[in-house]
Amino acid sequence: MDYETPQFFRVMQYANRADRDVVDMVSGSPDWEPPSALREGLSDYAEADPDEFQYPPSVGLTELREEIANRRGLDREQIVITNGAGEANHLAMAGGLELFPGEEILLTDPVYPYYAGRANFINAEPRFAPVGPDGRLDPETVRERAGPETAVIVINSPNNPLGVTYGEETIAELVAIAEAVEAVLVSDEVYDHFDYSGRFSSALSVDSTHRVVTNSFSKSMAITGFRVGYAVFPSESELLENARTRHMLTTVTGSRPAQAAVLRALKKTDPSYYEEVRAQLQARIDRFTDALAAAGAEYVEPEGAFYVMARFPEFPGTFENVERLIDEAGVAGMPGEAFGHSYEEWIRFALVSPRVETAADRLAGYFDGTTEGNQT
Amino acid sequence: MDYETPQFFRVMQYANRADRDVVDMVSGSPDWEPPSALREGLSDYAEADPDEFQYPPSVGLTELREEIANRRGLDREQIVITNGAGEANHLAMAGGLELFPGEEILLTDPVYPYYAGRANFINAEPRFAPVGPDGRLDPETVRERAGPETAVIVINSPNNPLGVTYGEETIAELVAIAEAVEAVLVSDEVYDHFDYSGRFSSALSVDSTHRVVTNSFSKSMAITGFRVGYAVFPSESELLENARTRHMLTTVTGSRPAQAAVLRALKKTDPSYYEEVRAQLQARIDRFTDALAAAGAEYVEPEGAFYVMARFPEFPGTFENVERLIDEAGVAGMPGEAFGHSYEEWIRFALVSPRVETAADRLAGYFDGTTEGNQT
Repeated sequence: MDYETPQFFRVMQYANRADRDVVDMVSGSPDWEPPSALREGLSDYAEADPDEFQYPPSVGLTELREEIANRRGLDREQIVITNGAGEANHLAMAGGLELFPGEEILLTDPVYPYYAGRANFINAEPRFAPVGPDGRLDPETVRERAGPETAVIVINSPNNPLGVTYGEETIAELVAIAEAVEAVLVSDEVYDHFDYSGRFSSALSVDSTHRVVTNSFSKSMAITGFRVGYAVFPSESELLENARTRHMLTTVTGSRPAQAAVLRALKKTDPSYYEEVRAQLQARIDRFTDALAAAGAEYVEPEGAFYVMARFPEFPGTFENVERLIDEAGVAGMPGEAFGHSYEEWIRFALVSPRVETAADRLAGYFDGTTEGNQT
Repeated sequence: MDYETPQFFRVMQYANRADRDVVDMVSGSPDWEPPSALREGLSDYAEADPDEFQYPPSVGLTELREEIANRRGLDREQIVITNGAGEANHLAMAGGLELFPGEEILLTDPVYPYYAGRANFINAEPRFAPVGPDGRLDPETVRERAGPETAVIVINSPNNPLGVTYGEETIAELVAIAEAVEAVLVSDEVYDHFDYSGRFSSALSVDSTHRVVTNSFSKSMAITGFRVGYAVFPSESELLENARTRHMLTTVTGSRPAQAAVLRALKKTDPSYYEEVRAQLQARIDRFTDALAAAGAEYVEPEGAFYVMARFPEFPGTFENVERLIDEAGVAGMPGEAFGHSYEEWIRFALVSPRVETAADRLAGYFDGTTEGNQT
């Protein structure tokens, strides 16, 4: 499987060339306001002394690492600030592959395609654990597929593309599997602020030298372009040392204006900001899944993140059908086949558009017509 | 050889712990004002619409690539915006090693230690071409050491740590050597705005499928912490495709606030800004080298960049002597042995302090005293 962006591009370009108005539900870029403290932090930084415009420490601004550590009950030294969660995942996956004996990286199916692209890129053998029809990952499936050949297991909770969240027991079992097979569990938790179920459990809750947690402020602060993420490694571990070296020799250090703005936002943003965004997304999900039900579609009820996977009657999630939906319904989603095999009948819709309502109406109307058409 | 920062840290920590006032001439972070348009660009960006806070294209903001391409007579498609020149060098070196048959990376001695650290990190065999006692790199020395085992040749002009610049003929010969041995010449030109000799010639002046030019705005705009650099690849080359993929899968894309600020500064900054900075540095160099002469030191007359390599009588450039200079003279430099073997008798001073005058006086006084002491 190739990595995600070219496939995103393919769909987005098709949507842009369409003769009609199209609601873009393809990319995962938030459409809402960032915290006001983030804008203030950036404005203030623009007036800073020239010495604040110079290299931050390679592992990131000390105050930012300290703030994250305090909030999460960690030691600052465990944290490396990265160029978004993308780099955090890269450091953890490449380091795990180097330090643990196996040659395989175990992923879920469906998978966030970047993980698979990165596994290929670092010359690991990707292997896939399919999730169940309810979207859940059964640790038994992971246990069956993990073994001495496994160096890294990557999970994402709350999950893209399925919207499920993994509870405490699941996480504990997955960490135990990583320990048993001498691998590292990489838990990408970038959607942790978007848990509607109350079930979400960070892998930080399980103390282990075999787990790394990655995260970023891209989604929680609506700033995917700022590129501020982080990885939390086991204290004084080889994984940590490996990541520090890799980070220094590939990117040197992250961008300081973005780190300064995030630091301010982290310190000064009231919890109500996150609650309001969550409520807005919950309302979008409700409205959209109501329309899916009306269209006779199956869907996985999102417990977290901001994606909905849906299956329409006799309308598999191919690129062809996604293009048909753009032309005939004016709604652009991502084909399920872009995420693997187990959900290739499905289509993913990202609820990062103020026009979710319009999209819902269009889909309900389109499939209602189609269904009737099929019935006559 | 290890990479630079820990060695920098060692010296800087020693200087910070000293009981006396110390002039820091260790790091290469500018101490002067960035262009005012850079600050304005960042302030304005802080007020932008939320969609401007989302992912820029992986290869960088289109307008920024366009602006660079227009200024340098390039095709925008050749350019990848990177997380500083550090990432640009990483992409070019790792890509060259992957695509060309050899296993070695040929560097100069003395070397900017990051190149050597990176060569080790990507499992290449580093090999060194020593420069002459005048600081110049003789292409013959490179020709002797290059062969089928060479995949990449890395040069830096204007040079850190020596301050020499390579003229047009040297660059053309180096590109020809890379072509002859099936390697890529990576020309790191981050100090191109600091050429006092008028001799500097970019490797872009030689058209070849065997050269990559890397650069950044870190030094020219006094923003080492912003992390905006770029690499220029041969059009439609495998090197370009390799770098795009590596960039996407390791860092996804660069930080957008920094790119937006640099774009504004690139468009709106008058050439007088760069001229004034250059004049200020030229004055510092003159003042400092006068003091070196007074102290009886040898030095390489800087033609570019903002470093001076100096050799004091009976005072080799070891860590021990650098620490002695901190304690006894109140001036901190980098030991020549941190840059390789051929200049291990020397000490590098970075002229990025408003206190160059003070440092010059202290050194002149110290070595005058020492010399007299030795003579009695």
